[in-house]
Formats: sequence, C-alpha cells, structure tokens
Amino acid sequence: MSGISAVKALVFDVFGTVVDWRTSLINDFTTWSATRGITADWTALVDGWRAVYTASMDQVRKNPQDGYIILDVLHRRSLEKLVEQLSIKGLTEADLHYLTMGWHRLRPWPDSVAGLTRLKARYIISPLSNGNVALLTNMAKFSGLPWDLIMSAELFEHYKPDPETYLGAAKLLCLRPEQVMMVAAHNNDLKAAQSHGLKTAFVARPTEYGPLQKRDFEADGNWDIVAQDFGGVAERMGC
Amino acid sequence: MSGISAVKALVFDVFGTVVDWRTSLINDFTTWSATRGITADWTALVDGWRAVYTASMDQVRKNPQDGYIILDVLHRRSLEKLVEQLSIKGLTEADLHYLTMGWHRLRPWPDSVAGLTRLKARYIISPLSNGNVALLTNMAKFSGLPWDLIMSAELFEHYKPDPETYLGAAKLLCLRPEQVMMVAAHNNDLKAAQSHGLKTAFVARPTEYGPLQKRDFEADGNWDIVAQDFGGVAERMGC
Repeated sequence: MSGISAVKALVFDVFGTVVDWRTSLINDFTTWSATRGITADWTALVDGWRAVYTASMDQVRKNPQDGYIILDVLHRRSLEKLVEQLSIKGLTEADLHYLTMGWHRLRPWPDSVAGLTRLKARYIISPLSNGNVALLTNMAKFSGLPWDLIMSAELFEHYKPDPETYLGAAKLLCLRPEQVMMVAAHNNDLKAAQSHGLKTAFVARPTEYGPLQKRDFEADGNWDIVAQDFGGVAERMGC
Repeated sequence: MSGISAVKALVFDVFGTVVDWRTSLINDFTTWSATRGITADWTALVDGWRAVYTASMDQVRKNPQDGYIILDVLHRRSLEKLVEQLSIKGLTEADLHYLTMGWHRLRPWPDSVAGLTRLKARYIISPLSNGNVALLTNMAKFSGLPWDLIMSAELFEHYKPDPETYLGAAKLLCLRPEQVMMVAAHNNDLKAAQSHGLKTAFVARPTEYGPLQKRDFEADGNWDIVAQDFGGVAERMGC
C-alpha cells in the first residue's frame, strides 16, 4: 500500500465537514421568517430535519428497485412531515421551496475556503457528498467553494456509504482508489472510504450538531491524516 | 417559449469551441519529440486523429450493448492505428500514453478564459463535452478554465449528439431545458441542443481545423446568440 505521496485528488464530505449546515440554516430561516411574519422554533426544525437525514437515504439505499431519489426531494418530503409535527402554520408552497433550498445556501467553516484554495493548487479537489449536483453547484457559487468538479452521490445513483460512491469517484477521475483521499468530519464515512482503498483525512468539527453532538469529537480510526482544520490537511499534503 | 432571460446555466462544447486542440497538440508534440529524438509529421498525426474522432464515437453510440467507452480509450485506439499508418517508429508505451494525454493539455482560445470568467459571475458554467471527466478536469487545471462543475458525455454514458447528453445536463442542474444555453462553434451541436429545447449560442472558430476547415465558418441556424467570441456571448448575456 502506497503512502499519501501517491494522492492526486482529495474528495470531501460536505455537510458538516466543509459547511456549518446547522448555524447556516438556523440563521437563514430566522432572518427570513422575520420578514415573512412567520414564527417557529427553527432550531427544532433544523435539528429535526437533520435527525431524519440518514433514515431518508437508507430508504433509497434499501429499495434500489424504486429508483434513485435526489436529496432535494428527500429534504422536501422530510420537511413536510416536520412542519406538520411542529405545527408550523402559514407556510406557502413558495415558503416550503425556500426552506428546502436552504440546503443550497450553507456557509463554510472559517478555514474551509482558504484550505481548499491551498489544496487546489496541487491536487484535484471535489465534493463527494450525498447532496445532489445542483445543490452542491449552487452552494459552491453561494459560498465561494473553489471545487475543480462536482461529484455527488447522484452521479452514481447510490448514497454514501455505498461502495459505488467511493469507487465511482476514483473511476471518474481515472485514478486508483489509493490515489484519492477522502476528507471528512465523520469517522464512519472514512471507515467506508478506507475499506475501499481510499486514503483518509479526519478533520474534527465538534460543534457541527451544537449541543446535540454525540460523536466524532475525535478520530477513532487509523486515518492517514488527523488535522484540526483544512489548513492542517493542506500542510500535511505539502501545500 | 421563453427568451434567453430565463437562462441560468451555459454549457460549452470544448474541443474547438473553448480550446484550440489542433495548434495545442501540434506544438506540444513538436516540442516534446525534439527532446525524445523522434521525428514524425505531427500535423498529419493530429489531423488524422481528429478525422476519425466522430467515427470512433459513432461506434459506441451504435453499439450500446457493448458498454460505454471513454474518450481517452478511443483516442488511444485511434492513435495506435495512426502510428502504424504513418510509420512513426520508436514510440514506447510511455510515449503513446504521453501523446494520448495530449488531449488533457489543450490551450484555450485567447478570449475563452476572460469570457468564461465574466459569465461565471452570473451563471453556472460547465463543459458539456464528449471528453471524459478526467480529461476535462485535467484540462481545466492545466489551462485555468474556471468551470463551476464538469459535465461530460461520460456522466450520461452517451456521446453527443445523443439526447441523453443535453437533457441529462439540464436534469443534473435541476433546470428545464430552456434554462440551459448550449455554446458551440459547431452548428450540428447547436441543432441537436435546440431540438431538445436548449437555448443556443454560436461562436465562430474559423481556424479550428487550420487549412482543412470545411464548415462552421458561420452560423447556419436560428441560434439565440451569434457572437465573434466568448466576450460577445458575455455581453449578450448581460455580464
């Protein structure tokens, strides 16, 4: 097994690793709802939304015969249930669309853009996210994420941690798995990537879930890089 | 049918439209071969290579049961035949690889990067090319093409002008066809795009084929935009 010197491309988990989805959504919805005259516990909505994220994708992963469903659609379905459960009143169709598209307007962690820019000078950098292509593209333009290309679970019609995502990314880049490094704040994503031969970098994001954070405070696997932030990954990669 | 004011994304043909493949390859191979001590008529090789380009993809388009084959592989197969036909001697495996990867090292026309940069400020910009994802990604890094994402025939496992490419690009972006504008120096590419509902922009590249240019000196369809260069497209699109 070759070391990290063979790496040609770094692929990134996005929600939580590159962007702070929780703070972004709560702030966005709070500001927006004031102008719309809608009151709701947006923190509860956002936390509840993310809480059903994995289950919504698992439904797709376990029922391939039903076809692939992009994350925007899963987000919208989950939102409709949550609005009902939380008794949020007065939302129009346009409002539901605005809230769903909130996932396209996420802001990066303070170190993300600078770290990605350093890495881009020497490596191919791409998301490898469960977000759909349009979501990731719009987010990159909104927040200035300097990706070389956009790789999404949608391209492979499989959500992470299905093998098709990690191996599909390497194949699209015409690289061997060990020439690709997965960067994530989630140990389980890295575990799957490593099992398929990718190199791994862990960056802790201990406030991702706010007071609800229960795991991923630190690396719990034998990762090739463990860094405090993207600047640390860039340094270890010689950028 | 809505006008070009509904356009959210511009997708670009690449070989000939964004980059000058002929001059780039001839210059690259001439410089390289001097250091390798190999003599050959590189102009004949490059022109011959491009002459079999469409036929090589048509083989894939007409035999879907054989699976999709990326352009790098088609380029390599065509090269091996041409080397034989042109009696070019002394090429090693590494040399054949270097020549094939020449298509990853193409240089833009003088107006391309400035025009793309202007358009990127307001629109999503992406290639929609028969080049494979790795080829287009490497070329963008080599020549500073500021794409928001990389869309390739490879993602749809269909070469242009198959409908799956134009409609697949709109679908990945979660846009309607009329919200996507195809930009090309080739009337036949625009004709196919328009037939599937995309908006169209023609940019003449009258020296693309050097002295062998036989067509596409001017627009011969009812395109939404006809411009001299990418700056002209940017101007018409309000950038």
